Amino acid sequence: MPSTRQNYREDVAGRANVEDSPELDAYYNELEQLSAGALWTVANKIEPWEPKSESVPMIWRYNDLRDHVLRSVDLVTPEKAGRRVIYLENPGRKEVAAAVGWIYSGLQVMHPGECASAHRHSASALRFIMEGSGAYTIVDGHKMTLGRNDFVLTPNGTWHEHGVSEDGAPCIWQDGLDIPLVNCLEANFYEVHPDLSQATNYPVDDMTKAWGNPGLTPANSPLGGAWDKPYSPMFKYEWEPTYEALSRLADTSDGSPYDGIMMNYINPVTGGPVMPTTGASMQMLRPGEKTKAHRHTGSYLYQCSKGSGYSVINGKKFEWSERDIFCVPSWAWHEHANASDSEDACLFCFNDLPVMRALGLYREEAFGDNGGHQPLID
Amino acid sequence: MPSTRQNYREDVAGRANVEDSPELDAYYNELEQLSAGALWTVANKIEPWEPKSESVPMIWRYNDLRDHVLRSVDLVTPEKAGRRVIYLENPGRKEVAAAVGWIYSGLQVMHPGECASAHRHSASALRFIMEGSGAYTIVDGHKMTLGRNDFVLTPNGTWHEHGVSEDGAPCIWQDGLDIPLVNCLEANFYEVHPDLSQATNYPVDDMTKAWGNPGLTPANSPLGGAWDKPYSPMFKYEWEPTYEALSRLADTSDGSPYDGIMMNYINPVTGGPVMPTTGASMQMLRPGEKTKAHRHTGSYLYQCSKGSGYSVINGKKFEWSERDIFCVPSWAWHEHANASDSEDACLFCFNDLPVMRALGLYREEAFGDNGGHQPLID
Amino acid sequence: MPSTRQNYREDVAGRANVEDSPELDAYYNELEQLSAGALWTVANKIEPWEPKSESVPMIWRYNDLRDHVLRSVDLVTPEKAGRRVIYLENPGRKEVAAAVGWIYSGLQVMHPGECASAHRHSASALRFIMEGSGAYTIVDGHKMTLGRNDFVLTPNGTWHEHGVSEDGAPCIWQDGLDIPLVNCLEANFYEVHPDLSQATNYPVDDMTKAWGNPGLTPANSPLGGAWDKPYSPMFKYEWEPTYEALSRLADTSDGSPYDGIMMNYINPVTGGPVMPTTGASMQMLRPGEKTKAHRHTGSYLYQCSKGSGYSVINGKKFEWSERDIFCVPSWAWHEHANASDSEDACLFCFNDLPVMRALGLYREEAFGDNGGHQPLID
Amino acid sequence: MPSTRQNYREDVAGRANVEDSPELDAYYNELEQLSAGALWTVANKIEPWEPKSESVPMIWRYNDLRDHVLRSVDLVTPEKAGRRVIYLENPGRKEVAAAVGWIYSGLQVMHPGECASAHRHSASALRFIMEGSGAYTIVDGHKMTLGRNDFVLTPNGTWHEHGVSEDGAPCIWQDGLDIPLVNCLEANFYEVHPDLSQATNYPVDDMTKAWGNPGLTPANSPLGGAWDKPYSPMFKYEWEPTYEALSRLADTSDGSPYDGIMMNYINPVTGGPVMPTTGASMQMLRPGEKTKAHRHTGSYLYQCSKGSGYSVINGKKFEWSERDIFCVPSWAWHEHANASDSEDACLFCFNDLPVMRALGLYREEAFGDNGGHQPLID
Ligand SMILES: [Fe+2]
Ligand SMILES: [Fe+2]
Ligand SMILES: [Fe+2]
Ligand SMILES: [Fe+2]
Ligand SMILES: [Fe+2]
Ligand SMILES: [Fe+2]
Ligand SMILES: [Fe+2]
Ligand SMILES: [Fe+2]
Repeated sequence: MPSTRQNYREDVAGRANVEDSPELDAYYNELEQLSAGALWTVANKIEPWEPKSESVPMIWRYNDLRDHVLRSVDLVTPEKAGRRVIYLENPGRKEVAAAVGWIYSGLQVMHPGECASAHRHSASALRFIMEGSGAYTIVDGHKMTLGRNDFVLTPNGTWHEHGVSEDGAPCIWQDGLDIPLVNCLEANFYEVHPDLSQATNYPVDDMTKAWGNPGLTPANSPLGGAWDKPYSPMFKYEWEPTYEALSRLADTSDGSPYDGIMMNYINPVTGGPVMPTTGASMQMLRPGEKTKAHRHTGSYLYQCSKGSGYSVINGKKFEWSERDIFCVPSWAWHEHANASDSEDACLFCFNDLPVMRALGLYREEAFGDNGGHQPLID
Repeated sequence: MPSTRQNYREDVAGRANVEDSPELDAYYNELEQLSAGALWTVANKIEPWEPKSESVPMIWRYNDLRDHVLRSVDLVTPEKAGRRVIYLENPGRKEVAAAVGWIYSGLQVMHPGECASAHRHSASALRFIMEGSGAYTIVDGHKMTLGRNDFVLTPNGTWHEHGVSEDGAPCIWQDGLDIPLVNCLEANFYEVHPDLSQATNYPVDDMTKAWGNPGLTPANSPLGGAWDKPYSPMFKYEWEPTYEALSRLADTSDGSPYDGIMMNYINPVTGGPVMPTTGASMQMLRPGEKTKAHRHTGSYLYQCSKGSGYSVINGKKFEWSERDIFCVPSWAWHEHANASDSEDACLFCFNDLPVMRALGLYREEAFGDNGGHQPLID
Repeated sequence: MPSTRQNYREDVAGRANVEDSPELDAYYNELEQLSAGALWTVANKIEPWEPKSESVPMIWRYNDLRDHVLRSVDLVTPEKAGRRVIYLENPGRKEVAAAVGWIYSGLQVMHPGECASAHRHSASALRFIMEGSGAYTIVDGHKMTLGRNDFVLTPNGTWHEHGVSEDGAPCIWQDGLDIPLVNCLEANFYEVHPDLSQATNYPVDDMTKAWGNPGLTPANSPLGGAWDKPYSPMFKYEWEPTYEALSRLADTSDGSPYDGIMMNYINPVTGGPVMPTTGASMQMLRPGEKTKAHRHTGSYLYQCSKGSGYSVINGKKFEWSERDIFCVPSWAWHEHANASDSEDACLFCFNDLPVMRALGLYREEAFGDNGGHQPLID
Repeated sequence: MPSTRQNYREDVAGRANVEDSPELDAYYNELEQLSAGALWTVANKIEPWEPKSESVPMIWRYNDLRDHVLRSVDLVTPEKAGRRVIYLENPGRKEVAAAVGWIYSGLQVMHPGECASAHRHSASALRFIMEGSGAYTIVDGHKMTLGRNDFVLTPNGTWHEHGVSEDGAPCIWQDGLDIPLVNCLEANFYEVHPDLSQATNYPVDDMTKAWGNPGLTPANSPLGGAWDKPYSPMFKYEWEPTYEALSRLADTSDGSPYDGIMMNYINPVTGGPVMPTTGASMQMLRPGEKTKAHRHTGSYLYQCSKGSGYSVINGKKFEWSERDIFCVPSWAWHEHANASDSEDACLFCFNDLPVMRALGLYREEAFGDNGGHQPLID
């Protein structure tokens, strides 16, 4: 019986290049009995020349999804659903329910007067508010009001719950989590809050007011001590000062050829990323700006928060406007363009860049040919 | 047509508990067309109460594997095989060629006069020498001689090659790599050395001689500057001083109830783990010592380097003696015992603990019942 | 001849308690010839029970100094004076020209159209603007405009020069430097700029615009790379956002019993102090607030930037209003009070706290008696 | 009356150059009344072009001091003296009882059966053993036996006491402390142990056995937790492994042109200096080695621990042999030479280099002329 094993031979010096034979096939079968295998049969597969992402570059348009998201309100209650969320499923990552790489994302909807039960988990979460009014979230007892384009953290291990006040309007926000990563690392724990809701002991929006100040930190933490948690104490980053910051930076910097005017959301205590597993940034493409292409390791999920434009990812063009979400897989070429010559366009992005950096796996490359722009693939 | 989707309902407050219906099924199908899904259909699956590893606790006995490893010498040349390695395949991790979790391991064999071609990759490697004489490895131009139970690093991005001198004896060593992790993170790069071998510019074993001294570091690095790489400059940790260190520690410490006398191999420049993705330790079980059970996140691969004994992993007993290799998956209960009342036993271990710690995912728990020992499962 | 050596005997077990004798005196003289001495003759002096500062708590009132500062304009030119500064001289620190401890401070005055020549030094400097308009400073090519209560850095090694534009009004600002410390550590270097002035290559106020944003940093430094200098890239901290930050913190925090609402100016790259040797803070005493007394190591120089009040330092009361400067020496008891029941009062402070912390020498103690308030000494 | 103020005028652009006048003199007097002064009268003094140390390069020869040290045993008891120490007094630093810069050093003597009472202080201490047998020291309950050329820590805040066992021989060791620095920073606290002696709870030499191992640290601290103190847990660094380490490094490295084969004693937890204020090193000059001259900031006190040779410091030659102590002041040119062509020579050194580095004040310069060697000054 001929072997059904795939042979990954490469005729390159230094690479495995062993032809099949009945003797070897018998040997492989014996090894299999011992829960072992011959490396040269898989070496070229598990040691690729460069990363080839399983994720597919793609876009989820808000126009397509919004109605379905709203429809879920009629179909399930928050009590039964846990959270009423439509998640984004990359065709290459269906098994792990990821939008790109090891990143999960979904659109959560809540109607005025609704709330979701409190819980916590080892996965780290963030929220980016897309529409509505009156939304709030409570993280470890700190209540925050949420407005359009606000960016909110729910770090690993914090109790959290969300709701919309009675006088609000239906709210939709994007959830982002490292659930697939924490699952794949076999380190996810989940706990329902014993009371299903938290007491809120602090003034509303206190963490942002205390920690979200330029070049200043509380000399005495509002929590009564030094902040030594591995994530940012500034749980909410509001849109207005973020946009203002981009505008100020644009006044003083030419920005990056690959990203225009880009700022990272940071943990003010360390200057580092907001959470150990998840980074986030907001970038502005100035009127008419077309960036050059580059690629790097790590998985990236973007949401257009202002204006419109397009990105070219691995040679394919994706047009986006406000609230559209698209992904750039690891080591995929990408470049961004603002469609307008008079208005700026802004892209929110979250990613696993902190993982790449912490593990020494970040690598970057510019697209050298063609003036730095990818040829389009039909 | 009834839905073929699995329903992960749980009847617990705060968990998803939505029953199937034709209407919902239709809705789910529509979402699928949009590369989306309803979170509540998978929430309980992707947010487990605690980690349940895909890896199976198991042992690979040297007696079983050694002949097969040696036989590979007759079956393939190093040139054709790239490296002549029999890898360990956990039944739960066949898809990613892992021994446990995201950790790869194999047994490499070389005969006197053989050598393997130089290359480098983003995956980080280590070696633990099992038998033979005359083996050497070259890492970024630094040649090291290898003896039984020596522990050697080949960090991310370093050029490396191995061989056995003409006057040596056939050598077998254990390779350990984070290949599955770096692949899953889509960040692996591979390069063959342009000359297929490196010039060796430094005195033999220089990095160990320069950096492997107690409480002392070179005031001026032998490499002509401060060491700022993210991994240890001490590329080889020899067995003799390691065993001596354990003995000294045993003189002064009661050790850990879960691990006996245990020391971590460290990067002397930082006091931290030897490589960003991979930690390693050597532990001594004193005569008659039986540790208590605990569990923690992270994946662990052990090799017995001295003596004999057994470990109980998730209630199952695994007996080991010298050169046997066994694994403890994430969040699996485990305890170790020395079989001898007169001799100590030593276990080498490498793991992804630095990943757990860097990402804030380490968690630990003691086994409280039954005097701290797991009941055996038949 | 009787010994002229002072005898520091203490009759306490564990302390030196050796009486003089002719034999010992002869012995001491012999030791002196060998550039040596007997420790027990000085031990109790050089190992005090607790710090006793050489600095005297004191206040410099702006009303007293302002005319003299302005008069210097008629007396010397900036060219001849280098910088036209009246420095504050603590009666206990005349030898080292310090205002308190190892901290130098002076009031610099400039008239419209004047400028001072560019230079650099190992001492780190800061400025706090007191009055006038049109002032600017240039630090390593970055020009900054200066307004009332702005706080500006001139770190160790940066080229700097100051001036007032032709259309401005006479300006006075406080200079703060670690000159005495760097001198005493024998590490001060000074260099005059070869051109006596710098080219300014960057947009005005660029470093504040780029780095002074809440919870955000430039993803790509406007200087074309990561910021790896040991001081803050945010060279100017403006008054308006600082006061706003205090107000926001006051909304969310009870503050400190010893300091009211206090914020530290930080290096946004690290979350740490603005310069390695010098920290700075701004604090708000709410209407009617009277803090409790404590003491700690380190030397502190305050300037009232808003309102009026008083501080009790080692039992002595010092009343202050806007622009008055006072000092708290190391280990001196101190408490602050706002004189107004309707307006808040603000105190700017700079200090050598980062030195205390870096060297492991910070210690703090609350005043326990008398309800936490010092009895006044007549 | 003519002014008695010294005028530090320099006729260099950018430096203060104001001539005296009766009007200015009157002005200066008025300022003095207000505890103020004109900066330009002192600017050139307090902002020197480069450091000019107050310390004098000098040597203390053991031959000269030993008899005097031993004589102290007859002159004072340890009980009365506190500690029986002859300290080294740099002619330029008499006021602060320093051997060089802000570093104190003395020679302590103890006879068999004697012990000194337990105490602690904010100053950090070290010991370097010069002769005798049976000496021990106890640091925070950890007892250590002391042999020739052993290097021992007594960090800031640790309880400590010393003695010599009944069966020992008279012992002399060098004490090194940052007392002058901690005093000048007004941060020194002193406490006598309530019992005048400590219980010793740990196995003898446990900290060295646990932490002094090459490339390994205890996975579980013998103190029952992670080590988070700001100083090294390895309280004693023994001579034999230190000399062996130098020999190993000499096999693999050409060393430094300025220092030969030099190693820093380190905190194994961080890879950094042994204590926050004090660094230490041991260097080997190979047979016939003559290093080149350089200078740097920081104060350095050397003791010859093996062999003989000479150092040229600011052009003056100082010959040394075993146990001689000499100093290199800040920014003084220095070079070292081994007098023997067949034996190596070793120099122990302790210094305030960690202070220089922590505060950003380290600077270094090579002596370029004359083949890198200083011309001798007669
Ligand atoms: Fe959640
Ligand atoms: Fe990018
Ligand atoms: Fe390899
Ligand atoms: Fe374990
Ligand atoms: Fe200056
Ligand atoms: Fe204070
Ligand atoms: Fe002491
Ligand atoms: Fe030197």
